[in-house]
Amino acid sequence: MKKKILDLIEEQKLNDLKKYLETINSADFPRLFEELEEENILIIYRLLTKEKAAEVFAELKPYMQEKLINCLTDVELENVTDEMFFDDEVDLIEEMPSNVVKRILKTVKPEDRKIINELLNYPENTAGTIMTTEFVDLKENMTVEEAFKKIREIGLDKETIYTCYVLTTDRKIVGVIDVKDLLISEPKDFIKNIMNPNVITVSTLTDQEKVAKMFDKYNFFAIPVVDREQRLVGIITIDDAIDVLQDEIQEDFEKMAAVIPNDQSYFKTSVFKHARNRIVWLIFLMFTSIITGTILAHYENAFVSLPILVSFVPLLMDTGGNCGSQTSTLVIRGFSQDEIRLKDFFKVWWKEIRVAVLVGIALAIINTFRIFIQYGTGQLQLALVVGLTLVIIAILAKSLGCILPMLAKRLKLDPALMASPLITTIVDSCSVFVYFQLAVLIFGL
Amino acid sequence: MKKKILDLIEEQKLNDLKKYLETINSADFPRLFEELEEENILIIYRLLTKEKAAEVFAELKPYMQEKLINCLTDVELENVTDEMFFDDEVDLIEEMPSNVVKRILKTVKPEDRKIINELLNYPENTAGTIMTTEFVDLKENMTVEEAFKKIREIGLDKETIYTCYVLTTDRKIVGVIDVKDLLISEPKDFIKNIMNPNVITVSTLTDQEKVAKMFDKYNFFAIPVVDREQRLVGIITIDDAIDVLQDEIQEDFEKMAAVIPNDQSYFKTSVFKHARNRIVWLIFLMFTSIITGTILAHYENAFVSLPILVSFVPLLMDTGGNCGSQTSTLVIRGFSQDEIRLKDFFKVWWKEIRVAVLVGIALAIINTFRIFIQYGTGQLQLALVVGLTLVIIAILAKSLGCILPMLAKRLKLDPALMASPLITTIVDSCSVFVYFQLAVLIFGL
Repeated sequence: MKKKILDLIEEQKLNDLKKYLETINSADFPRLFEELEEENILIIYRLLTKEKAAEVFAELKPYMQEKLINCLTDVELENVTDEMFFDDEVDLIEEMPSNVVKRILKTVKPEDRKIINELLNYPENTAGTIMTTEFVDLKENMTVEEAFKKIREIGLDKETIYTCYVLTTDRKIVGVIDVKDLLISEPKDFIKNIMNPNVITVSTLTDQEKVAKMFDKYNFFAIPVVDREQRLVGIITIDDAIDVLQDEIQEDFEKMAAVIPNDQSYFKTSVFKHARNRIVWLIFLMFTSIITGTILAHYENAFVSLPILVSFVPLLMDTGGNCGSQTSTLVIRGFSQDEIRLKDFFKVWWKEIRVAVLVGIALAIINTFRIFIQYGTGQLQLALVVGLTLVIIAILAKSLGCILPMLAKRLKLDPALMASPLITTIVDSCSVFVYFQLAVLIFGL
Repeated sequence: MKKKILDLIEEQKLNDLKKYLETINSADFPRLFEELEEENILIIYRLLTKEKAAEVFAELKPYMQEKLINCLTDVELENVTDEMFFDDEVDLIEEMPSNVVKRILKTVKPEDRKIINELLNYPENTAGTIMTTEFVDLKENMTVEEAFKKIREIGLDKETIYTCYVLTTDRKIVGVIDVKDLLISEPKDFIKNIMNPNVITVSTLTDQEKVAKMFDKYNFFAIPVVDREQRLVGIITIDDAIDVLQDEIQEDFEKMAAVIPNDQSYFKTSVFKHARNRIVWLIFLMFTSIITGTILAHYENAFVSLPILVSFVPLLMDTGGNCGSQTSTLVIRGFSQDEIRLKDFFKVWWKEIRVAVLVGIALAIINTFRIFIQYGTGQLQLALVVGLTLVIIAILAKSLGCILPMLAKRLKLDPALMASPLITTIVDSCSVFVYFQLAVLIFGL
């Protein structure tokens, strides 16, 4: 693709290039542009049709959009913003530095600027910020024929036309109808007779993650957003819902790895910012593990008189941490998939305790054999201490892995914060304490 | 909802109940059924229209489907399978025990049974297994008017009709057209003049995760699946693509928490199976941490003569593990979002090393203060050993967190296997080794 384009530019065959560009999917342009020189990007971009240029622009990453805006004339920029959907324009304005925003807003028509300003004012992460104000609205007493006429009139500019909304004269939503249902109805049928009056709506302030999950549950293509008076103010389309789902999942992954979530891509985040996003949790967890160290120091007499005890500390700490993070991950995911709810607390805990007993005993048996092989069968006491500790910390770790995310949820915190790193350091303290207490007891140290 | 339904059943107002049931979204039935007695479920289910009954059935979880099938008569079951989409039927057959499968296949029409058997034969996790064979096919020389007629004829039974495929007489795909484009064209226009000839297709054997990601990239509603001769054999719709994405993400979460991925839900998985899914990695990781223990035992003389050294082991192990898992999570996610590629190896590594130096130095400084406060400013040597170790293991951990997932990717293994638990145990050995080597050197032990 890249080679063919460069050849066509080289040979000055711009008409051929124009035709060829039309065959490339808009979503494939970002990667293409990344591999080309600025001047060639401009040549290509100026050959695109107005609609395609806007589509391609919306697909680009922010830094590339900024670069492109700085090269375009005011008229060219106006063509782009004219064709863009409102929600994409809002995204753009939120990403750009203020001098670029000024240039963009200058090219936007005054009536559009009003809508954009309203969209910009919704609180972060709400349905209002991801909705678009462009949709097909029908009236109850329209016929199917009239509905199609209306769709044709305004349809071209709509992000999705496949779900139409039936409104009263004061713009309250009373029904929803799929284009599919219009297609299989008679031209003279009335909308009110074929529309579905059971409309599932969200409010402008509904959390965007909740909205995205509704798409997953109901298999919608679009969902209507209403204000407090049930008036339709916008719709959210499935493509935006998928983006939200992906972002939320990425956020969970980062939180669960003790990284402060970051909107920007890996490469566009500076080394300094990467360090900042990671150091906060590292410092917090460092102080937590100082507690473990202090407990360990407390048993100085024990391990000085029986140094072999120390060599089992890594095994016990790691196993405890792993047991805990297995459970916490499953519980956190269970929450986010609505499979586990708060009222299931005892059910989950009881299940985890039984799993822990099985797992703990299995690990204890394997470890006993290993101790006998490595240190001889005389080390019965050692095998007993380590084995018992394994069973106890499996139960402890799996209990904490279930209790802590549940507690976070109960306190309306994000359960993802209670993921492996935190569980691991907390379980560590318990493991070391249980282990040395048992050792002191059994060896009589 | 539940109360109203039970009241209506109680009062024997079945006609009212029937009307009320029609207003409930199919996706809301599973939760409702979970809260009701079997006899009431049957009353409700038998009041649903044929289409709704099939829709509701497809939404139910497998164990509930099985329960319901066992209560339905053959004729009732036939009504359900008649209305179901082929891909949902295949899902059902794959989930049910063999005696139930026999009953289902008996009710399916012979011609449908052939299609189902073909779908069942595609290798696991390929596009073939999630596609449906129901789609709208048009011919190049049809007019828009004729196309609409065809859509109306077959449209009712299609999972999606919004994307139509233009085929040659030998069923090769030559174009694709959105219903939206049909709607804004003149009735007499020819399909060949308005269709998009640049069709993006996948093969029946394409990995389903790859297909799902294409939906995310191109904002499709459906994607055509072709055989080796470019003949259209089915389509994959966006709802199935979203399910695949969700499943793959769940799998990644489980792998990254050292749990063997499991298709079944948390509660439906038995305690024994939960234990089995977790013990494998725990045993493997236990043996890895035995190496750390052995290294530790090697420095017995050092920590017996200077016991305070031991109390820093948890801090160093935890910090190393956390540093490593931060990086490995970001790299693994970068892969799965196509943001990081193998050729970026040195770019990522160099970035991680710089982040590690910043993070390591910050942690070392904080820890030095803490040592001075806790043990007095005389402990300069100790602060030096711990501080140096922190910087070195930050670099080591972040390097491994980048190298190991990259290596896995290079060897065509799943990078998610190189997540926190494995990185942590590997980094542990390094931390302990570096720490005691430095201690021996600086304290002259």
